[in-house]
Amino acid sequence: MIYLDNAATTFPKPIEVVNAVANAIKKYGVNPGRSSCELSIKTAGLVYECRKAVADFFEAKGPESVVFTLNCTLAINMVLKGLLKPGDHVVISCFEHNAVVRPLKKLCNSHISFSKVEIYPKNKEKTLLEFSKVVNEKTKLLVCLHASNVWGIRLPIEEIVDFAHKKGIQVLVDAAQTAGVIKINLKKSKIDFLCVSGHKNLYGPCGVGLLISDNIEKLDTILEGGTGTNSIFLDQPNEIPEKFESGTLNVPGILGLKKGIEFVNNLSTENMFKHKFELILYLYNNLSQISYIELYTDKPNFEHHVPILSFNVKNKKSEEVAFFLNSENICVRAGLHCAPLAHAFFKTLDKGAVRISPSIFTTKDNIDFLLNAIKKL
Amino acid sequence: MIYLDNAATTFPKPIEVVNAVANAIKKYGVNPGRSSCELSIKTAGLVYECRKAVADFFEAKGPESVVFTLNCTLAINMVLKGLLKPGDHVVISCFEHNAVVRPLKKLCNSHISFSKVEIYPKNKEKTLLEFSKVVNEKTKLLVCLHASNVWGIRLPIEEIVDFAHKKGIQVLVDAAQTAGVIKINLKKSKIDFLCVSGHKNLYGPCGVGLLISDNIEKLDTILEGGTGTNSIFLDQPNEIPEKFESGTLNVPGILGLKKGIEFVNNLSTENMFKHKFELILYLYNNLSQISYIELYTDKPNFEHHVPILSFNVKNKKSEEVAFFLNSENICVRAGLHCAPLAHAFFKTLDKGAVRISPSIFTTKDNIDFLLNAIKKL
Repeated sequence: MIYLDNAATTFPKPIEVVNAVANAIKKYGVNPGRSSCELSIKTAGLVYECRKAVADFFEAKGPESVVFTLNCTLAINMVLKGLLKPGDHVVISCFEHNAVVRPLKKLCNSHISFSKVEIYPKNKEKTLLEFSKVVNEKTKLLVCLHASNVWGIRLPIEEIVDFAHKKGIQVLVDAAQTAGVIKINLKKSKIDFLCVSGHKNLYGPCGVGLLISDNIEKLDTILEGGTGTNSIFLDQPNEIPEKFESGTLNVPGILGLKKGIEFVNNLSTENMFKHKFELILYLYNNLSQISYIELYTDKPNFEHHVPILSFNVKNKKSEEVAFFLNSENICVRAGLHCAPLAHAFFKTLDKGAVRISPSIFTTKDNIDFLLNAIKKL
Repeated sequence: MIYLDNAATTFPKPIEVVNAVANAIKKYGVNPGRSSCELSIKTAGLVYECRKAVADFFEAKGPESVVFTLNCTLAINMVLKGLLKPGDHVVISCFEHNAVVRPLKKLCNSHISFSKVEIYPKNKEKTLLEFSKVVNEKTKLLVCLHASNVWGIRLPIEEIVDFAHKKGIQVLVDAAQTAGVIKINLKKSKIDFLCVSGHKNLYGPCGVGLLISDNIEKLDTILEGGTGTNSIFLDQPNEIPEKFESGTLNVPGILGLKKGIEFVNNLSTENMFKHKFELILYLYNNLSQISYIELYTDKPNFEHHVPILSFNVKNKKSEEVAFFLNSENICVRAGLHCAPLAHAFFKTLDKGAVRISPSIFTTKDNIDFLLNAIKKL
């Protein structure tokens, strides 16, 4: 099978990741911070090493800036619900994923409101102008993804953060699609809350998400429970990261993620981007020659896009195309990709879009195979 | 190392569990319900099979009664915060874990109150009388663990559920320590919400918890996001279990848990209990002969205890004893085990307790080794 849905999760994973997960269960399968023995301390040390690897990777202040969650969605929920209070206003981009929109819709019941802002691809000034039109004195948070999971369009997050901070507004960046492909420097970018998926471009196993923030103490908890620390207190302890990590962690997943990050570091984020970008550019150039292909975005540009490309076949629903490609042994994603707002932008809510997202393991031959299949349509 | 802290997490795991997790990443590492290809459908099918295995194991109505979470703590938070509204009153037992108490303490800020009830071990009538003293017309939920994670004392949950239902009160049972050791029949027991840990006596890997309920639609969500379903709607979908499973699931963990449940089924819950119970009884009998050992609970009785035993050494803090045992290559847990209420019961808040919890892999030789080490104290 030719797998081209790496924006959903990267597959295959590096063999080191698989081995690290299996090894974690076999060799370090005790509960860190619970048992009173050397092995438990060793396991806790390995979890700490992954925390440190994440902090280093995103240039956060330190390991205590890193919270392990189940997935990026939980990290986003933790920020939205841990920060916002009745009366607060939130501004989001028009590309946001349901991981952002659905919790915000829910929060509307608690007298929290949000406004959606149009994005002008490749035009930072016009985009920022749109943001400036909707922020008001009640705006506490601005939420934007780093790049659209449907269209691969990058948002000017550095400028958005600058703009927001000047107005005293905090920023949550959903980097599910960019962490591991675009360098993110937490200190320099001053992003307040970075939410990341461990199983996409960081090549970890499914089951680990990350909340990274140098100001995590600003958040209230949305989950409480045993932390293995300060057990005598019935109130959630204030120590970070324990405050935000109640219950037993996904230790095998975390130890696997550590190897995933090492894999990315060894090849470098820049090379990850370059390899995938060249494939997407090649695909774009070829698709643009096929008369019945509908492309929505401009020719991929390394400054304004990440290597994700969505298209449609004229007069066909995206699901039909994906069904045909599946019969040709090619795995893509069709439909709305959990991001109806992004589809509304290019008026594809009715048919969705066929999304192609390569990984470091994708080859030019794979793209040729896809192009040949598309030509059969 | 002789590992006797299986109440924190069972270790080792059956090799089938390790292999299933590794295989899940290698062979089924795509995102179920997201990609449009055969493998994604196959992976979704395997997740469904685990859901069905869990439903069968606990005799729930069907697979849609099962929600996969990160851990038992998240499952408990989902029930407490998804059910309770300002003004509601909750009754808990005096043995509850911080996974219950800490979220409830937090909910007190939202005008939710709770009362703690004394338990009379081995005396169902007196225990129920205590419950009847504190419930009132505002009591919506009764929370009790199935067995204390510190003392192994079982609570009469069948009778507690009967009592509660007669008053129109729902019941959350925290079965972290009993699922896989004591048969739990959701239909017969009429437990409203059962919260379970996947990595303890179900022998799954860390990273999966379970919320099992035939009335799960009664709960509001505390987390929302992409579900891969009804993507066009900005509101969380009502379909169950998707409504309660936002974002990417821990697929490797879930597929591992499936093998863990098969392992328990093959040996049978009854045999699991019997094997561990005999070891704990043997330990109890031997410890009771040692003058400087403080035992708190009565001689283990299969009707009133699960195979967990906590003790202290006179004039020593539990941590000191655990430290010594670690030097003898024995892993136990000391301190408060995230359950200060349970320690208050036997007045061990100051020194904690040394907890011994065997698994199916623990042998009589292991217990003899422990006893020999204790005799060196």
